[in-house]
Amino acid sequence: MRGTSLVVDEVADPTPGPGQLLVRTLACGICGSDLHALAHGDQLVEMQAEAAAASDGIPMAPPMDLALDVVMGHEFCGEVVSLGDGASNHAVGDLVVSLPVTFDTAGVHAIGYSNEYPGGYGEHLVVSDMLAMRVPNGLDAERAALTEPMAVGLHAVNRSQATPAHAAVVLGCGPVGLAIIAALAAAGVGPIVAADLSPTRRKLAVTLGAHEVVDPREEPAIDSLRRIKGAGKPLVIFEAVGVPGMLDDAIRMAPRASQVLVVGVCMVPDTIRPLRAIGKELNLQFVLGYDPMEFGETLRRIAEGELVVDPLITGRVGIAEVPAAFEALADPDAHAKILVTPNA
Amino acid sequence: MRGTSLVVDEVADPTPGPGQLLVRTLACGICGSDLHALAHGDQLVEMQAEAAAASDGIPMAPPMDLALDVVMGHEFCGEVVSLGDGASNHAVGDLVVSLPVTFDTAGVHAIGYSNEYPGGYGEHLVVSDMLAMRVPNGLDAERAALTEPMAVGLHAVNRSQATPAHAAVVLGCGPVGLAIIAALAAAGVGPIVAADLSPTRRKLAVTLGAHEVVDPREEPAIDSLRRIKGAGKPLVIFEAVGVPGMLDDAIRMAPRASQVLVVGVCMVPDTIRPLRAIGKELNLQFVLGYDPMEFGETLRRIAEGELVVDPLITGRVGIAEVPAAFEALADPDAHAKILVTPNA
Repeated sequence: MRGTSLVVDEVADPTPGPGQLLVRTLACGICGSDLHALAHGDQLVEMQAEAAAASDGIPMAPPMDLALDVVMGHEFCGEVVSLGDGASNHAVGDLVVSLPVTFDTAGVHAIGYSNEYPGGYGEHLVVSDMLAMRVPNGLDAERAALTEPMAVGLHAVNRSQATPAHAAVVLGCGPVGLAIIAALAAAGVGPIVAADLSPTRRKLAVTLGAHEVVDPREEPAIDSLRRIKGAGKPLVIFEAVGVPGMLDDAIRMAPRASQVLVVGVCMVPDTIRPLRAIGKELNLQFVLGYDPMEFGETLRRIAEGELVVDPLITGRVGIAEVPAAFEALADPDAHAKILVTPNA
Repeated sequence: MRGTSLVVDEVADPTPGPGQLLVRTLACGICGSDLHALAHGDQLVEMQAEAAAASDGIPMAPPMDLALDVVMGHEFCGEVVSLGDGASNHAVGDLVVSLPVTFDTAGVHAIGYSNEYPGGYGEHLVVSDMLAMRVPNGLDAERAALTEPMAVGLHAVNRSQATPAHAAVVLGCGPVGLAIIAALAAAGVGPIVAADLSPTRRKLAVTLGAHEVVDPREEPAIDSLRRIKGAGKPLVIFEAVGVPGMLDDAIRMAPRASQVLVVGVCMVPDTIRPLRAIGKELNLQFVLGYDPMEFGETLRRIAEGELVVDPLITGRVGIAEVPAAFEALADPDAHAKILVTPNA
C-alpha cells in the first residue's frame, strides 16, 4: 500500500530482532479490513492513535505513516526460516501461525498495518516467538491461514451472551459473518438466520451452519426468524456488514432487551436513532479481534476437522495478482476468501 | 399538550375502571422528557409504535394521537379519592405513588403520554391498583413525587456493571444525572466524577454524592478522573445529557473495554464513529425507566431518609404556571426539579 494504491515492488527483507522469528509466508488471506484500509487509511491511523492513547499502560508503537509503504496481510501461515536472539519456542522449519502483532522495544506493532513489520502479502514476515503457534496435526498452510478470520467469529460469539437457549441473526455472510455462523453452530446456538444479498454467500452460510438464509430484499431476517418459530428465544444479532446504515437496521429489528454485536467495521461516521435503542433497552457490544486462547482454539478446531474451512477458499493468487484480487473481492458473488501465496 | 404547545384548559375528569384508582394529584415533577415530548412529539409517537410492535406478546395500547390533547406528568404522588371495581389493595385517603402505566382491556397505557390517561399536571389521575404503592413512614407527597426520577438512576446503575471496584463518570447533572450519582454513591462506586456546564448543577452533584465535579469546557471528565487517581479502576460512563454529539463524546473518552450507559434521551438521529467503539471494544447499554422493585426500593430509600431529595426541589407551581415553568427549565442554572401542585 503506497498512499491509496496497491503497488507491487521490491522492498528490503525484514530481519528478526531478539525474541522474534523470520517466517517465509506460505499463505495469507485477503481481509475486508485491508480493502477498507486502502480506501480509508487515515481513519485506521486515527483509530490506531486513539487506541494507543486509551491503552493506559500497554505500550503501543506509533501508528503507521501513510506516507511510507505498508505491506499488508495479517491472516498468514508460514515456515520459520531463522530465529532471533533468545527465540527458543520454535525451530527452523516449523509451520506456524501467529496473532498479527509483534513486540519490540518501541511497543506493540500490528503486522500488516505497520511500516516496520510487513504482512503476509510479501515473501517474509517477522513474528514474536512468544505469540507464534505451531500448526498441529499435519494441517496444511492454506487451511491454517484461515485461523485468524475464523478466530474473529469465535471471539464475537464469546463476547455475546449467546447460549443454546438463544436464537441468532447474522447480518452479512462475508468471511466475518461466516466465521460467526460457524462459531454459533459450534456453540449450539439456534436457530441461526443469516442474511446476505449474494446467493453464493447464502449457500456458504448454510454450509457453515446457518439454519435459514434470507435475501434481505425479499424477507427481513427478523421475519424469517418468526416464520421458523425462532422468535420465542432471546435473540442475539450480529452486524457483520460494516456499511453506514446497517447498525441502525440492526437496532430497528432488535427485540426488546436484546443484544447487537457490532463486528462489521464501518470506517466512516454512521447515524443511529438513540431513541429507538433506548425504547428497547438494547445492548450494543462492539468487538474486535480475539485473544490468544481464542486464536489457539480456532487453530485446534481447524486442525482436528471440527471446523471445515475449505469452502471458504475461493481463490489463490501470487503477489503480482494482489491488486486484481482486491478488485475481484468487490463482487461478493465471485469470492469468499482469496489466499495470497507469495512464495508459490 | 395541544399539538406543539402547552395550553391550560378544562378537560373532563377521568373515571377509574375495574382494578383502577382515582387519585387526586398532590405533586408532580416536570421531567425533561416532557420538554422533549413537546418539541419532538412525533418522535415519541414513533417510538411508542415501535415498542408496541417489538413487545412480542405484551399488549401495548396504541400510541398517543398528537391531534388530541395530552395531559402530561408522570412523576406524581397523590391521594386515593375513589376505587374502581375490584380495586382492593388500597383505600380512599391512601397517599400513593405509582409506576406511570395503567392497564385496561386495550393494553398498557403510558400515564402522561396518552390521550386517555391524563398525567399529574392535572387535578386527577387514574392508576392501576396493582401498580400503586402506599407512601410509607409519613413521607410527604412532594418528596414521594421524586420516586420516579430517582428510580431512573437506580435502574441505570443496576443495568451497569458498576460495583465498588469501579469508577464512574456521569456526563450531565440534570435530574437524571443527579439520580444516577445518588444511586452510584449508594452502591459504593467511586470515585464518581460528574460533568456539567452549570455551577448550580455541579453543586447539586456534590450534594448527591459526586467526589469530583468538572466544567467540561475547562477539564474533560476523563482527565479529572486521572488527576484524582481514579483511572486505575475499570470505568463506567453514564451519558445523561441526550443531545446530539454527546454519545460520540462518551465513546471518545471511554477507555478500552469499558461500558457506556446511555440514559440521556436524544430525540433526533445522532452520529457516532463505530470504528472508535470497535477499536476499544466498548459496550453501549441503552436504558429506560425502571422495574417495580427498583421503584419500590427508591421509595423506601427516600422514606427512610437514606436518599435525601430535598435539594433537588427548586420550585413549585400551580397548573396555570406550567407553561412558564417549561420555559424556566431551559435555564439549567435556575432549576433542578419543579413540582406542579395542581390542587394546592
